[in-house]
Amino acid sequence: MAELVPVEPFDIVVFGATGDLALRKLIPALFHRWCDGQITDDSRIVAASREPMAQEAFRELASTHIFDNGNVTDARRKAWAAFSERLNYVDLDASGEGEGWARLKDALDPDDDKIRLYYLALPPSIYGSVCAGLARQGLNTPNARIVLEKPIGSNYHTARAINDKVGEVFNENNIFRIDHYLGKETVQNLLILRFANYLFEPMWNANGIDHVQITVAETLGAGKRASYYDRSGALRDMVQNHLLQLACLVAMEPPESLEADSVRTEKLKVLKALRPVTPASVANDVVRGQYQAGAIGGETVPGYAEEVGTDTETETFVAIRAQVDNWRWAGVPFYMRTGKRMASRRSEIIVQFKQIPHDIVGAAKGALHPNRLVIRLQPDEGVKLMLMTKDPGPGGLRLRYVPLNLSYAEHFEANYPDAYERLLMAVVRGNLSLFMRRDEVEAAWRWVDGIIHAWDESQAKLYGYQAGTDGPTPSALMLAREDREWFDAISY
Amino acid sequence: MAELVPVEPFDIVVFGATGDLALRKLIPALFHRWCDGQITDDSRIVAASREPMAQEAFRELASTHIFDNGNVTDARRKAWAAFSERLNYVDLDASGEGEGWARLKDALDPDDDKIRLYYLALPPSIYGSVCAGLARQGLNTPNARIVLEKPIGSNYHTARAINDKVGEVFNENNIFRIDHYLGKETVQNLLILRFANYLFEPMWNANGIDHVQITVAETLGAGKRASYYDRSGALRDMVQNHLLQLACLVAMEPPESLEADSVRTEKLKVLKALRPVTPASVANDVVRGQYQAGAIGGETVPGYAEEVGTDTETETFVAIRAQVDNWRWAGVPFYMRTGKRMASRRSEIIVQFKQIPHDIVGAAKGALHPNRLVIRLQPDEGVKLMLMTKDPGPGGLRLRYVPLNLSYAEHFEANYPDAYERLLMAVVRGNLSLFMRRDEVEAAWRWVDGIIHAWDESQAKLYGYQAGTDGPTPSALMLAREDREWFDAISY
Repeated sequence: MAELVPVEPFDIVVFGATGDLALRKLIPALFHRWCDGQITDDSRIVAASREPMAQEAFRELASTHIFDNGNVTDARRKAWAAFSERLNYVDLDASGEGEGWARLKDALDPDDDKIRLYYLALPPSIYGSVCAGLARQGLNTPNARIVLEKPIGSNYHTARAINDKVGEVFNENNIFRIDHYLGKETVQNLLILRFANYLFEPMWNANGIDHVQITVAETLGAGKRASYYDRSGALRDMVQNHLLQLACLVAMEPPESLEADSVRTEKLKVLKALRPVTPASVANDVVRGQYQAGAIGGETVPGYAEEVGTDTETETFVAIRAQVDNWRWAGVPFYMRTGKRMASRRSEIIVQFKQIPHDIVGAAKGALHPNRLVIRLQPDEGVKLMLMTKDPGPGGLRLRYVPLNLSYAEHFEANYPDAYERLLMAVVRGNLSLFMRRDEVEAAWRWVDGIIHAWDESQAKLYGYQAGTDGPTPSALMLAREDREWFDAISY
Repeated sequence: MAELVPVEPFDIVVFGATGDLALRKLIPALFHRWCDGQITDDSRIVAASREPMAQEAFRELASTHIFDNGNVTDARRKAWAAFSERLNYVDLDASGEGEGWARLKDALDPDDDKIRLYYLALPPSIYGSVCAGLARQGLNTPNARIVLEKPIGSNYHTARAINDKVGEVFNENNIFRIDHYLGKETVQNLLILRFANYLFEPMWNANGIDHVQITVAETLGAGKRASYYDRSGALRDMVQNHLLQLACLVAMEPPESLEADSVRTEKLKVLKALRPVTPASVANDVVRGQYQAGAIGGETVPGYAEEVGTDTETETFVAIRAQVDNWRWAGVPFYMRTGKRMASRRSEIIVQFKQIPHDIVGAAKGALHPNRLVIRLQPDEGVKLMLMTKDPGPGGLRLRYVPLNLSYAEHFEANYPDAYERLLMAVVRGNLSLFMRRDEVEAAWRWVDGIIHAWDESQAKLYGYQAGTDGPTPSALMLAREDREWFDAISY
């Protein structure tokens, strides 16, 4: 089991503390790291939000979000009282100049050399003004770090503008652009699998790999977030960050080390090598869809437009056939898809190796399957290597496609931390390697902007798909054209 | 589960039916195949031996050998009566010309076109005369096949002489030289792993593989067989057949198909490419040992010489550093070892891949292990791929060496047949691919003869090792010289 090395003492301010992210993820993450002894008692946790609220009321609100899901042990329930004493609520309009700032300063350790985290669980449009406020108040101390949630902007230009504003107050080395997918165990393990094993790397290229599939499928709809979501859509909300980051980790060249800038430079190279989608290619290479009423898990659910309350052209599903134009990946498609209201909730990366060049076995038609590395992010994090083996027993030589399994639940003591727990501790440690550098974010936007531009120019069709299915038919056809198929839960 | 296709009707004569092999392996194998419906009722099973014995006495003797190990189901116990009615005992001196032959003919189906198996569970020295007897009696019918147990001879010249004699009566296509290791599930699976998966083959060579280890370790001593064993020793008894056959399957080029002569030609090429051991190289590349008194499983056991009853120079252990001199394997040692009275009973092939060329992780010293494919033949047949992964949990990036497991017991319905069951059915089907061709046997002897000659010329030292250990120290040193070590149960 892990030896838990406590991090250095730090103060953290969670801006937007009454929002969903703070209550569901950030405060719980800090609580669990504190319970494990990783956060020492000379650290301070400050929750800040515009809403005037009594100390006790906030602590109560926070505790219900932690304990109302059943997975917390009794020991942790008992520990809450002690933790909540160090959880201070401050009401503050962080984009303004009110007196809230004074209350915030009071809540912080006066030691200006202490590590400070400012976590902006706020709309990106006010990142700039909050940073300006921090600067005016002299809170951009030498060891202050700022954590930004995605999305950084809604296109290349707005992202640049935000990065410029934040950059006026913080050095790039103190800016932590979070993508919680990078904090997931299996995503981190992908780097170890690729670069701490000899077995894969020599074949991790166009000679050995047929194609890559990245799927991030949700069963939830836009629901209450519909009006917010309607301004972004699946491409901006998911592809620009999560899916492209996963693609980068699969596709990147071996960095010289895991040091942050080595890794981030390699990821940037992948983003820059993505073949731009043009108005001429977009119909072939990108499918956009929007869910319609359907049924999931036996319950009927409304269509997206009904949730938004009006006709809308926003996509809730996108499938992309991407190409990384470099030596390693020439001719190897990276198929990516993400959507809401799909058949099952699952995020995974599948690396499909080439089929064997010659069958010495004389296998029955359809009996030979290519090797496949399946990296499951959720649910049930795990790694699976699909191999052909001999089906044992009498009756001649028969083949069987079986998984060699590395299930986390099986092999490791359970209860490893959530991605946010890991990432917060990484910020305290100043480890930037799990965060996106400015140029990465902007390069990702450039590519995504290209798709949006191509959609506009070509008046791309928006395909309906029934809620509870794996997206519109053209998504399947895009692969079928190349004699491939999406690997759904059922197909391996 | 396997679909059991019954084999064609056949008659089998097991010569040497009162011997150990027949009673412990062959009759039980036929019984189980019959129980599974693979042997139809128009087949005949004849047990032949010099010993005069009543029908019932032999059936009784055979049944005790089947049922005295506890692994037989009640249903099978009940089936014995019906099976034993078709088990006919004939007393016959197969190397002579007595009237036993007439009894044998009476026991066989008069149909000369029927498939017939003559299984010689006899000393190889009389293979020739038994074949001559079969010919004289006109029993070498068109579909007659002869099955020969190892060892075929005790060196190249005696092997040739036997092959010549047998070849005077039977075509090479009707001669089945059995090596029961080739009937094991995991050995057969090795071919599927190599040639039905793309993943391994591109690295299955000197670029990808550091070395190969083949271990066949017994805990038993020579015991009652000591006086017989003393005429052969570990090299002739085990290396010439089992270990070299396994090495061939690991090292061979992809055959164009699994058709018998394709596979056997590729194995022959490996045997011919084995670098000859010379009087100059033998001290470096071969270690011979003999067990001395010791303890196994808490019980003291005598030394080998005590069992033989006199001083003896016969080796009960041999470790070899072999080289396959071809493009694929240049510079990749094949370490082979086999011995009696070793620490644990186990047969396995370990393919050690190269270490990664550059560590991006900054792993602690000793934390990075090369990938390893472990093919376990016994006990617990299975395949295991050792990988480096990220140890999940908080506390920074730590590595862990874990197995991806393909355990037969876990993944497949249990109770697949013994190697002899499979091999006997293969003989009935006329499938020669699991049997050794004449030239293979002779090439293996040529190489083994070279070692024996080198031992004689160099007066090679015989090292003692304590019973219950993994052989004499020079065996470990042979690998240590090259910065490698034998992988014992404990080391992975």
